[in-house]
Amino acid sequence: MDNRPIGVFDSGVGGLTVIKEIIRQLPQENVVYFGDTAHLPYGPKSSQTIKRLVRDNIRFLLKKKIKAVILACHTASAFTLEEIRASSFPIPIIGVIRPGAGETLRVTKNKRIGVIGTYGTIKSRAYAKELKRLEPEAFVIEKPCPLFVPLVEEGWIAKEATRLIVREYLEPLKEEGIDTLILGCTHYPLLKEEIARVMGEVYLIDSARATVAQMKKILEGKDLLAREGVSHPRQSFFVSDAPERFAELGKIFLGKEIEKVEKVNAD
Amino acid sequence: MDNRPIGVFDSGVGGLTVIKEIIRQLPQENVVYFGDTAHLPYGPKSSQTIKRLVRDNIRFLLKKKIKAVILACHTASAFTLEEIRASSFPIPIIGVIRPGAGETLRVTKNKRIGVIGTYGTIKSRAYAKELKRLEPEAFVIEKPCPLFVPLVEEGWIAKEATRLIVREYLEPLKEEGIDTLILGCTHYPLLKEEIARVMGEVYLIDSARATVAQMKKILEGKDLLAREGVSHPRQSFFVSDAPERFAELGKIFLGKEIEKVEKVNAD
Repeated sequence: MDNRPIGVFDSGVGGLTVIKEIIRQLPQENVVYFGDTAHLPYGPKSSQTIKRLVRDNIRFLLKKKIKAVILACHTASAFTLEEIRASSFPIPIIGVIRPGAGETLRVTKNKRIGVIGTYGTIKSRAYAKELKRLEPEAFVIEKPCPLFVPLVEEGWIAKEATRLIVREYLEPLKEEGIDTLILGCTHYPLLKEEIARVMGEVYLIDSARATVAQMKKILEGKDLLAREGVSHPRQSFFVSDAPERFAELGKIFLGKEIEKVEKVNAD
Repeated sequence: MDNRPIGVFDSGVGGLTVIKEIIRQLPQENVVYFGDTAHLPYGPKSSQTIKRLVRDNIRFLLKKKIKAVILACHTASAFTLEEIRASSFPIPIIGVIRPGAGETLRVTKNKRIGVIGTYGTIKSRAYAKELKRLEPEAFVIEKPCPLFVPLVEEGWIAKEATRLIVREYLEPLKEEGIDTLILGCTHYPLLKEEIARVMGEVYLIDSARATVAQMKKILEGKDLLAREGVSHPRQSFFVSDAPERFAELGKIFLGKEIEKVEKVNAD
């Protein structure tokens, strides 16, 4: 039993979909969230820059006496997949790519898999590489959907314009006969309804959900779960810039108010 | 006569609309462009951070032996308006806010003026303050349109979804009876046609155009224009991160290939 918090890192506000899953699957856990808003978005940055930022940010979380880290940012996970695997950090640390890929291979029947994400994530080919590593016969088709993040951040979840954009991005994927689609960006689960409307029977993989399920197993295995019945587990939120904007946007993701967001120095 | 280049600075690729105007209005001039892509977008950053970045970036341009600087970034111009006015730099340096505001007041008849831009620019209220300073009776209504930048960067200029988004953002402005609308972001001139379709008779101010016209006057006044008839004026492009992405996007803005983009160290 271990009541230290789980650290969650993202470049911005999107990782709150992971917090929401922690509340659902691990309701007794304390959480420390760090959003590196001074450097967002990670998508257009070089892999070198992203690796440096991820290292710095994990160090920040370690100072908060956490027992494990989730890299909720897909771009960060994509570019540091190897580093995480060979990690020398003293605590468990997982990204969102591997759990999402594992879950995908458990549910696909025809092994035809779609992946959507930001330019950065798709360009990294991280999901495709991981899927192929685990299942060489998988057919993977990838597609960047860069308008989804700004649409979600504007709160335009169920608008006609959103519907048109979702259709334009996803119809070519549907024609490829995929039976499983990975929502390869923390923001995308908020568009799940519109995406499902276009994709029909296709199974949608929410990596946040798969990642938290994976973290639960790891904590169980190492006897690191928090004691059950702890009253009011604590959630702390830190960002490197613009805390008000984070709190405002955060509502869309968490479905509730974020009372306190603390700004810390980046660089 | 002075054949040294004009320096143009932006946080990313949007400032290329200024380059396009230089080619149109000052075709004999050499140009050095610096896009601070390692730190984009400037919009969500604090004013302190923005001022530091702008200072550093102007210093970089000065090393390239330029004769004048245009700050093409609206957020940078907004947050350093006072500094520029009281500038101690040894060469002329102008932002996009003042020329845009000046041009606006020359064309408005009813003094009801709209301003659209990113969250950062609108939150700074820089255009409104400058307009009010020059014309206390101006009525200014401001509106952030954060989806315009990602739409332009996707190249979705004339799509149905873009049309719906433009209409949703701008119809409330139209109802306010403005006769002039400032396109307060380097990306927005690319949506001019769709914006005009919604706004009808409203005069659209393209700050890039007004800024280059202003620069032309300054250079004329100081006898710093390049000699006419110089064959093949040179354009050099530098960025602090991801040069390939810059070159790719740049095509949309310049309407032609960018042959060489050099990456330089930021920080």
